[in-house]
Amino acid sequence: MCKGFSEDSFLKSLFPKLNSNNDLLLGPGDDCAVFSCGEKSLVIGVDQVIEGRHYLAETAAVKVGRKLLARNLSDIAAMGATPKFALLASASSSLNNEDWLVDFHSGLLDMANEYGVCLIGGDLAVTNNESVASLTIIGEVSGREFVTRGGAEEGDVLYATGYFGNSFLSEHHLNFVPRVEEGEWLKEFGVTAMMDVTDGLLQDATKLSGASQLNLVLDEAAVLLRSGADVKSALCEGEDYELIFTLSKERESRLKEEWAFEVPITKIGTLDFDGGVKPPVNSQGEDLQSKYGKGFDHFDG
Amino acid sequence: MCKGFSEDSFLKSLFPKLNSNNDLLLGPGDDCAVFSCGEKSLVIGVDQVIEGRHYLAETAAVKVGRKLLARNLSDIAAMGATPKFALLASASSSLNNEDWLVDFHSGLLDMANEYGVCLIGGDLAVTNNESVASLTIIGEVSGREFVTRGGAEEGDVLYATGYFGNSFLSEHHLNFVPRVEEGEWLKEFGVTAMMDVTDGLLQDATKLSGASQLNLVLDEAAVLLRSGADVKSALCEGEDYELIFTLSKERESRLKEEWAFEVPITKIGTLDFDGGVKPPVNSQGEDLQSKYGKGFDHFDG
Repeated sequence: MCKGFSEDSFLKSLFPKLNSNNDLLLGPGDDCAVFSCGEKSLVIGVDQVIEGRHYLAETAAVKVGRKLLARNLSDIAAMGATPKFALLASASSSLNNEDWLVDFHSGLLDMANEYGVCLIGGDLAVTNNESVASLTIIGEVSGREFVTRGGAEEGDVLYATGYFGNSFLSEHHLNFVPRVEEGEWLKEFGVTAMMDVTDGLLQDATKLSGASQLNLVLDEAAVLLRSGADVKSALCEGEDYELIFTLSKERESRLKEEWAFEVPITKIGTLDFDGGVKPPVNSQGEDLQSKYGKGFDHFDG
Repeated sequence: MCKGFSEDSFLKSLFPKLNSNNDLLLGPGDDCAVFSCGEKSLVIGVDQVIEGRHYLAETAAVKVGRKLLARNLSDIAAMGATPKFALLASASSSLNNEDWLVDFHSGLLDMANEYGVCLIGGDLAVTNNESVASLTIIGEVSGREFVTRGGAEEGDVLYATGYFGNSFLSEHHLNFVPRVEEGEWLKEFGVTAMMDVTDGLLQDATKLSGASQLNLVLDEAAVLLRSGADVKSALCEGEDYELIFTLSKERESRLKEEWAFEVPITKIGTLDFDGGVKPPVNSQGEDLQSKYGKGFDHFDG
């Protein structure tokens, strides 16, 4: 649809123009930004859902509201943070259908209550066409204890929570459980890098390894497949909302015995040093992007 | 367009369902929400611009980006806060026109630099129809020193910065200067309540007086008219982005001599006690809503 334009290249040209200040600890480019707030740090991100793209016109409104907050909770989880506050901006074509709006907020608020999030602000407006809603989420960590994509070290192993692929047809993309407690636990456990998988496992794992200036060796056969998924779907389809994270081999030995959550964790690769500039390969040295494609770009979707 | 539905009535039914926490100092319903952050308080709000509603398809993209941030800066100004950070979510139909997106960000970032705001996060997506962009802004005040709509006391006088009316045709709604320094100064000076005027002076001044449990006496002849505006436009059209504020008569005597900003300030009314339940009147006792209409509702626009 938008040949010659990609979010990543646009953002690469935008980021050098952004200014900073003394409180800013982590600017754009990770799952959330982080700034200092006294003895704590605040973790903040924004994400949106668009009719016809992230959900269908016939999707139940309660699931749309739920998904919007869940997407943002997944970003908070990726930083190892605890969610606190949210603000909502929605431009809806459904204002002539107040039931839709009530259901949308109901789905969002049920999830907010479940995760201890307070909705503290918003803006409502009308559009003539498809609905768009964006949510800003604020979480916190004590001290400066947040996890970025860029902290992995040479030889670290790469793990993933849960299953991958077939998110759209299975409606996992509407019903997924954001890994908030798991993310907080993993931060405490001492993972070196973490992110959530939205644009496809292959693309996102490549981003994580690149942010850490390392190269990815991904064992695609180890990836757990969601019911109905094949390996290509698991690697490229996106909207899995699982966490991927890295840790040292020393810590790895304790990980599985201390992991007490229901969702499984699986070792899916390692990070090797070569400057983060080589395309991802599997353990046989095959170029995975050539084999499976590059994955989901929101602008091509 | 949406008979039987208004933002205010919907929000009134929504607010009781929202939860709170120990850090929350001011929830939804004011220009921004406020929560504690160590020795400071953070002031946060979200606002959006929608193609065909807040700007036209042919409006220069640089002015659209500028307006989006300026709207939010006006909300920060209304709290007496200092702007710090912003996050942007945009769903654009103009992604096949990268120039538009570059210009939009250019307008936004020029204003961000001017006001010391750091853009720290965002989300970009594509729509098939009109563009929507929302911006979350974060400001700060020391201690708990923020100004709300609800702090006016019986007998306080009501002032406004600047001129009103004819915002759309004059393109004031694109070119206005948010009153950030003025808002910070007014907070220090000791105003009792403050808000910015977006939905029309009459409607917003009524909101302020109602939030303070007071009734409004508005002297419509005192309101400064923007070039091309009549009184009805000044009271009802909206998008003025000026500040209205209240203060005691004792402080009023010092206000004009200490006011050192270029924009004029004008006394436009007083707040009387009667429980905030009577419709606004002028000094002759005429019902202003009957005389001029209720003002701009974003859902009717």
